[in-house]
Amino acid sequence: MRIEALAADFGVSVAWRPFLLGPIFKKQGWNTSPFNLQPAKGRYMWCDMERQCERYGLPFQMPSPFPQNGLLAARIAFAGRDQPWIGAFSRAVYIAEFGQGLEIEDEALMADLLIEVGAPAKQALADAVSPETKIGLRAAVSEAEKLGIFGAPSFVAPNGALFWGDDRLEQALETVRASA
Amino acid sequence: MRIEALAADFGVSVAWRPFLLGPIFKKQGWNTSPFNLQPAKGRYMWCDMERQCERYGLPFQMPSPFPQNGLLAARIAFAGRDQPWIGAFSRAVYIAEFGQGLEIEDEALMADLLIEVGAPAKQALADAVSPETKIGLRAAVSEAEKLGIFGAPSFVAPNGALFWGDDRLEQALETVRASA
Repeated sequence: MRIEALAADFGVSVAWRPFLLGPIFKKQGWNTSPFNLQPAKGRYMWCDMERQCERYGLPFQMPSPFPQNGLLAARIAFAGRDQPWIGAFSRAVYIAEFGQGLEIEDEALMADLLIEVGAPAKQALADAVSPETKIGLRAAVSEAEKLGIFGAPSFVAPNGALFWGDDRLEQALETVRASA
Repeated sequence: MRIEALAADFGVSVAWRPFLLGPIFKKQGWNTSPFNLQPAKGRYMWCDMERQCERYGLPFQMPSPFPQNGLLAARIAFAGRDQPWIGAFSRAVYIAEFGQGLEIEDEALMADLLIEVGAPAKQALADAVSPETKIGLRAAVSEAEKLGIFGAPSFVAPNGALFWGDDRLEQALETVRASA
């Protein structure tokens, strides 16, 4: 939600690299979100997320069900990763799931969000299910693992330094700016 | 490392409530630190901790072995939780393990640290192994679980709001100050 505006303030450019967290969790032996696997921590994380949204002036609504099937959204994002609408589309998906309680596996919802952010919806949906996208998204998961990524969002500086989570966004941007 | 000075800045008083994390992890089915159970996340957390220490001007040295047996240190802290030296002693234990690579299960080290922070070492070590302390520390674990605590450090505001980890220390203190 914050990276595009904040990166501009820092004079840092962002390359979006959508990937899937599910396969990374599965290698840990997890078949669902750690929010569900560790109930006390999960309850806290939802509470923390609600407080952070309030601090940032963002809407929050606990998604149900959670986790959701984000494969289509991830494929659209992967296919459109270098398009000018990638930031706005990513924010729209998160607002839909975590701000409005909508189910993001719905293709009609994805089409609405694409139109809303000025993307060519029909083309973007077609690109999302192309063989290149499916293969590329799987490769992006392997690349994420090689970078040491275990959660999302993660930020990787040009020197390979990894920063995990909204709490480290400023630090990631400071690091990139300092090394520029 | 930061709470005593920062709480004073915020005009907030702190009641130290030492507890054991091991029994809480064990109920999750974990027999060691999650840093060890999730290697990619563990590697990141050590890197993050080193960066945070550098930002705060604190020494950092990866402990070996990790985790360590902190039962004696926890018992000393529990028995001394309302003593004026509790903050300085807690910091000294963390500096020993995470700043100097010392093994904190060593009773002679604990005696040295107690003397260093101006505590009556002989009495504090005797109090640490009293039946009242052993029973009280076990009760503190149950109390922590009832408060929803799953990690350390955790901060609980008078209204019961829970904040986890150094990253939320300022927010915890703001919350307490705002409700005062």
